[in-house]
Amino acid sequence: MSDNPADFTRIRLFVEDDLATGAGFTLGRDQSHYLQNVMRRGVGDRVAIFNGRDGEFWAELTDARRGAVGLSLGEQFRAQAPEPDLWLVFAPIKRTAVNFMVTKATELGVSRIVPVITARTNSERVNTRRLRANAIEAAEQSERLSVPEVDEPVRFPAFLERWSGTRRLLVGDETGAGRPIADIAAEMAQTPVPLAVMTGPEGGFAPDELDQLRDVPFVTPVGLGPRVLRADTAALAALAVVQAVAGDWRSGRMG
Amino acid sequence: MSDNPADFTRIRLFVEDDLATGAGFTLGRDQSHYLQNVMRRGVGDRVAIFNGRDGEFWAELTDARRGAVGLSLGEQFRAQAPEPDLWLVFAPIKRTAVNFMVTKATELGVSRIVPVITARTNSERVNTRRLRANAIEAAEQSERLSVPEVDEPVRFPAFLERWSGTRRLLVGDETGAGRPIADIAAEMAQTPVPLAVMTGPEGGFAPDELDQLRDVPFVTPVGLGPRVLRADTAALAALAVVQAVAGDWRSGRMG
Repeated sequence: MSDNPADFTRIRLFVEDDLATGAGFTLGRDQSHYLQNVMRRGVGDRVAIFNGRDGEFWAELTDARRGAVGLSLGEQFRAQAPEPDLWLVFAPIKRTAVNFMVTKATELGVSRIVPVITARTNSERVNTRRLRANAIEAAEQSERLSVPEVDEPVRFPAFLERWSGTRRLLVGDETGAGRPIADIAAEMAQTPVPLAVMTGPEGGFAPDELDQLRDVPFVTPVGLGPRVLRADTAALAALAVVQAVAGDWRSGRMG
Repeated sequence: MSDNPADFTRIRLFVEDDLATGAGFTLGRDQSHYLQNVMRRGVGDRVAIFNGRDGEFWAELTDARRGAVGLSLGEQFRAQAPEPDLWLVFAPIKRTAVNFMVTKATELGVSRIVPVITARTNSERVNTRRLRANAIEAAEQSERLSVPEVDEPVRFPAFLERWSGTRRLLVGDETGAGRPIADIAAEMAQTPVPLAVMTGPEGGFAPDELDQLRDVPFVTPVGLGPRVLRADTAALAALAVVQAVAGDWRSGRMG
């Protein structure tokens, strides 16, 4: 490890490669540029590496060719551990709000992100590549050992048809009729089932979509308080309450 | 009321004027521009008006002079009602993150927003005028009857000295030693005291600031789960859990 003072700020990078002490590999152009030109790291500096499967390792920079930084893996300092099984389902909204929602949901610990095209969804284009990049960056910064999956968008009817029956889908109830989410989450904590949080588009679900959500057995409407929340606020608030009451916020800091 | 289909989308405007049925007043330039040029409203259309004191009224456009829309107040359709007494205290972070935090905190129902300059706060400039505009817009869209106060920034030592002893300050604990926020909030719900949520700057509190927070009797450190949250995520997650468990999320939709 160098004496570079910048080295005391741990840099974490997510990679796809298999990880094992002694292995070496070369980073792609973007991560190499980030290490060399943004963070000013050179040969002998070290960074932390994780891949979502093998835990987290120290790695030393062994080669600082432009755009192709070489790394040699040192010791594993965190073993891979189970992370929450919690999904976020959302109808695409404005680009900045979606970026924000994916970043924050990753920090809050979701394992999968599912874009659903509803009748009132204005934008049908979802840049899943960009969302995945956001999720990776948020996972790196939040000390997670995994990155949430980002699905390709699916239309609302197909989404409901393909839903696995065991996972419970908590849907923010715009009519105010849903039971308070803290009560629902407390019940879920007693008999743990996998959960997902779903928010609609800015214009809300269409009436026939609301009917379908009422008719399927896996949906639980939840109340998110007396104020009207934007879609991204509703998603994050619901995820925070679920994690705090029924998730892993009772087990202390990881690692 | 006109037959303009756009009229079915209710527009809410916050004003400083006193409100009473039959009263008339003239909007300022920005709100006039918004009604005329953005929302395309004209004489005979109606909007909803609130001021944080007198409830919410229908108002009809009686004069559409450019930049000076005249309104005549009709019936009051919502009485002023108590709103949560919950503060957000934050160390200024990046501009977009602060805008975002103020908007979301307003949706989540905070009554006062207090910027505090800590040792590691990078930016000492806080545009309270812009933050107040964000809070007003979020209050209009979230159906609140009030707008949170936005304080002028105060330095950390003065902030601690001036704190009123009865309000409890929940501070996200970066060491992971804080008790889970859901447990703390459940206790607070039993013996209601006014609450505030506080988050530090991106670099965290300085060691002597952490010592001072430990030493004052009104601070309760709270655990926000095993992942590292950015300051704005921590603030919103904490506010959501407090409102869901100990706040007004158990009473259904307002109005």
